[in-house]
Amino acid sequence: MTVPLSDPDTADRTGSAPAHATDADAAAALLAALRRDLPDGILGTGPEATGPYATDRSGSRPAGLPLAVVHATRTEHLRTALRHAHALRVPVVPRGAGTGLSGGASAGAGSVVLDLSGMNRILELSPEEQIAVVEPGVITADLDRAAGEFGLAYAPDPASAAISTIGGNIATNAGGLRCAKYGVTRDAVLGLDALLADGTPIRTGRRTVKGVTGYDLTGLLTGSEGTLGVITAATVRLRPVPEETVTVAAYFAGFAEGAEAVSALTAARIEPAMAELLDGPVLGAVDDAQGTDLRSRGGALLLVQCDGRGAAAEADAAVRRLRGRADSVEVTKDPAEAERLLAARRLALPSLERLGRPLIEDIAVPRNQLAAAVREIDAAADRHGVRIFTFAHAADGNLHPILVLDPGLPAVPDAAWRAAGDIFSAALRLGGTLTGEHGVGTLKRRWLGEELGPDQHALQRRLKAAFDPRGILNPGKAL
Amino acid sequence: MTVPLSDPDTADRTGSAPAHATDADAAAALLAALRRDLPDGILGTGPEATGPYATDRSGSRPAGLPLAVVHATRTEHLRTALRHAHALRVPVVPRGAGTGLSGGASAGAGSVVLDLSGMNRILELSPEEQIAVVEPGVITADLDRAAGEFGLAYAPDPASAAISTIGGNIATNAGGLRCAKYGVTRDAVLGLDALLADGTPIRTGRRTVKGVTGYDLTGLLTGSEGTLGVITAATVRLRPVPEETVTVAAYFAGFAEGAEAVSALTAARIEPAMAELLDGPVLGAVDDAQGTDLRSRGGALLLVQCDGRGAAAEADAAVRRLRGRADSVEVTKDPAEAERLLAARRLALPSLERLGRPLIEDIAVPRNQLAAAVREIDAAADRHGVRIFTFAHAADGNLHPILVLDPGLPAVPDAAWRAAGDIFSAALRLGGTLTGEHGVGTLKRRWLGEELGPDQHALQRRLKAAFDPRGILNPGKAL
Repeated sequence: MTVPLSDPDTADRTGSAPAHATDADAAAALLAALRRDLPDGILGTGPEATGPYATDRSGSRPAGLPLAVVHATRTEHLRTALRHAHALRVPVVPRGAGTGLSGGASAGAGSVVLDLSGMNRILELSPEEQIAVVEPGVITADLDRAAGEFGLAYAPDPASAAISTIGGNIATNAGGLRCAKYGVTRDAVLGLDALLADGTPIRTGRRTVKGVTGYDLTGLLTGSEGTLGVITAATVRLRPVPEETVTVAAYFAGFAEGAEAVSALTAARIEPAMAELLDGPVLGAVDDAQGTDLRSRGGALLLVQCDGRGAAAEADAAVRRLRGRADSVEVTKDPAEAERLLAARRLALPSLERLGRPLIEDIAVPRNQLAAAVREIDAAADRHGVRIFTFAHAADGNLHPILVLDPGLPAVPDAAWRAAGDIFSAALRLGGTLTGEHGVGTLKRRWLGEELGPDQHALQRRLKAAFDPRGILNPGKAL
Repeated sequence: MTVPLSDPDTADRTGSAPAHATDADAAAALLAALRRDLPDGILGTGPEATGPYATDRSGSRPAGLPLAVVHATRTEHLRTALRHAHALRVPVVPRGAGTGLSGGASAGAGSVVLDLSGMNRILELSPEEQIAVVEPGVITADLDRAAGEFGLAYAPDPASAAISTIGGNIATNAGGLRCAKYGVTRDAVLGLDALLADGTPIRTGRRTVKGVTGYDLTGLLTGSEGTLGVITAATVRLRPVPEETVTVAAYFAGFAEGAEAVSALTAARIEPAMAELLDGPVLGAVDDAQGTDLRSRGGALLLVQCDGRGAAAEADAAVRRLRGRADSVEVTKDPAEAERLLAARRLALPSLERLGRPLIEDIAVPRNQLAAAVREIDAAADRHGVRIFTFAHAADGNLHPILVLDPGLPAVPDAAWRAAGDIFSAALRLGGTLTGEHGVGTLKRRWLGEELGPDQHALQRRLKAAFDPRGILNPGKAL
C-alpha cells in the first residue's frame, strides 16, 4: 500500500472552495488562531505530523501536504477549528481511521485535517432500548464487541470493521457482508450530533425506532463523505445476535453458474445473512498465497450463511437448491468449521495484495444481473489488457472487481482507468450504480454526473451550498 | 368524519409562499394556461370539484377552497401544471387518497391540488429482483396483493393500507404494524422519479439493494410531505412472505404491566413482527360497540405475532416470558383463529368513532418508556378533562393516544389542544418524538421547533429553499 495513485481530480480538488483556501495569509491566520485557542497536543503541523493524512487506503494523493491536523478529543476542539476555518474560508477534511477506498479522506495542500480517531468513547449502550451512543472515532468492531456482552450486535460489518471507525462508516454509508438481510450503515443510524460548517451544533434524528419530524437529515448526512457536516456522535440501533448460524460452501464450474445459484436462492425466497461469491482467479490467488487447493475444486466458490431461529430450516432449503447446480456442497453449524470455510473470503484481499497494488472497484447491479456484470468485467479486462479479480456480495448484487497493478508504476496506468470506466458504464447500463458501498470520494467523481444526470447533480450542489455556503467541508469530494 | 377541525396554523399556512399566491391575476392566468394546455377532463374547477380536496382525514381545513384540481393520469399533466404554477408562483398541494391524519394534504384558498390518485399503475413487478416500480396513486394494499402472487410482500403496512396510496405513504414515511421488524416506508423505497417545483424531472436512488452515489435524495424526499418535489414513480423493495406466522394474545392487569411484558420480550431478544398493546378504555369501547367482553378479561391486551422459519420457536420463547406476567395467554398458528384474536385491534378505531370525533395523536418514545408515556397521557387527560384512549405499536415505542371529541363542537376545544401539547412535551421529555409515523402536516407545526431546535429548523428551511426557491410546494406544511 505504498505507491500513491495519481488523483484524476486533483486539478479541481479544491474547485468548489473559495480562492482564500490557498491564500497564505488565511493559512497563517488560521494556524495562529488554532495555536492560540486549542489546548496543547491537539494541533499538529509540519510534514511529519501532516504527511500521514495526505492519503487514505485508496492511495489517492492530492498535491501537497495539509496545513495542519487537529487531533480532536472533544467536540469543543472541532467547534474551535470550524469556527476559525469558516471565518477564514480554509478547507477542512474530516477523517476517521483513513481506511476509505475512494480518496474521501485524502487531504491536500491548504487544508486542515480534523482527525476524529481520538474521539473514541462509547458514551452509552442501552440493552433495554437496543441502542448505543458513540463518538465517531469508535472502531466498528469494538462497538460490536461491546454490544455482544449483552447478546446484541451492531449489524453493519464492512470488511474493514476491525480498523475503520463508526464515523467513517457513517460518512461513506458503509456496507459489508450482512447487508442483504440486515441493511447498510444508514439503516442502523437513528440520530446524529453534527457540527455545521461554522461550528454550529445540531442534533438530527432521534433515539426512537420510528420518527418523522422534519426532513431526514440523519440519512442525508450519512453517506455525505464529510461534505455537509462533521459528525461528533451517533445514536445507532443494535439488534439481537442471531440464535444460530449455519454456513454453506458450494463450488461451481464458474462465476455465472454461482450467480445463477444465488438467483435460485432468491427465487426460493431464501434470505441469507451472507452470500459471498468468489471467481476462479481469486481462488487461484488464494491458492498461490496460502498453499490451498481451492481452484482445483471449482471455478467459483459461493459462501452462504443463514441465521436466526429458522437458520437450520433455511439452510436446508438453500442446500436443496444448490445441489445439482454445484459441483460440491458443504454445510456446517460448527463455528470452527465455518471459519475454515470462510477463510478463502477472508484471505482473498491479502492474497491479491501479494500480486501487486489492488485498485478495488465497487459496482452494484440488480441482483439478477450478476453474471452479466462479470461478463462485462472480464471483457473490460481483456480489452484493456489488465488483470481483474472479482468477488461479490452476491445477495445484494454488489461486485468488487479488483484491478491488480504493478507496484513499480508511479501512477495508475491509463489502461486501468479505461477498464474501470468501462466497468462503471456497464454497471449503469445494467441498471446499477458505480459505487455500492465505498463512496465516490475523488476517484469516482468523473463518472458521477453520468449516474445522477445534470438536473439532480445541480440540485445536489444546491443542497451542499445550503449546508456549507463557503464550501469549506471536504471540497472536491463526493459530489 | 364530518366536523372540520379548525386549523391552528391557518394564519400562516401560506406564510412561506410569495404574496402572488393569492393574487387574483396570477390565479386567472394559471387557470387559463391549464385550460389551454391540459387535455379535457384533467382540470377541475368550482366548489363541487374542489370542495372534497379542502381537507384530509385529519379534518384540518384551511380557509377557503382550492383554485382547481389537476386529476393527473400522466406525468406530463403534472409537468404542465408545475411549469405554469412555478412561473406564476401559485402554491400546489400534491395529494394521494387524502387519508393523512395531520393535515398535510388539506388545500386552501389560492392553491392548486395535484391529485395523483389516478396515476395508479403498477409499472413493473420483478420477482427476480424483488422490486416493483409503481405510480404514486397505487393503493398500498393493491401492491402488496400483486406481490403476493409471487410469494412476495410490500412490507410497510400502515393501518390505512386498504385506502391510502404508496405516494401518500412515501410523502409521510408511513409506518404501520410490522415496522419493528420490517422497517418503515423509507426502508422499502429504493428510488424515486420526482418533479422539482418547476416541473424538472429527476430520478433519485436506484434499483439495486445498495448504492452510495451522491446524497440520499430518496430518503430526503420520503417523509417530506410534498414540500420538496412531486413523486411520479417509486421503485420499492419487496420481500418474501414469511413461511409461517404465529399469533399470541395476552391480557394484563393494566397497560403498564403489558408494557413491561413487551420490554421483557425485547430483553429476551425476541423480535416480533407485530406487538400491539391496547389499553382498558379501548377494550371497553370495543365491547360497547361490538358486544364483546374483552374488558372483563383484563385491563390491557397485547397482541404479538412472530413470523419466519423460526416463528414457532420464537413464539414459544415469547409465551414463556408472558406467562406469569399476563392474566391469560392464547397462541395460534391458525389464520382464522389469529384473525379472531386480532379483531380487537382491527375494530378499535371504528369503535372509538362511534363515541365521537377521534383526534389521533402519534408520539413515539424509547421502547422502555412506554409505561411512562401512558402515565403522562392519562395525567394529561385528567388535567384537561378530555377522554383519551391509547393503543401502541409497542415493539417500536409508537403510541396513538386518541382524543375523542364531541362531534357537535364547531372546532377542536382548547382543552384538547392543551392535552395534546402536554402529550407532545412529555414525549420529548422522555427522549421521544411528536410524530412517529403520521407526519407533521399542519397540525403539529407549532411544536416542531421544540423538537428540532432553532439551528436545525433554520437548516431545514434552507434545504426547502434549495429544492423550492419560490415556496410553491405545499407551503405551510411539514416544516
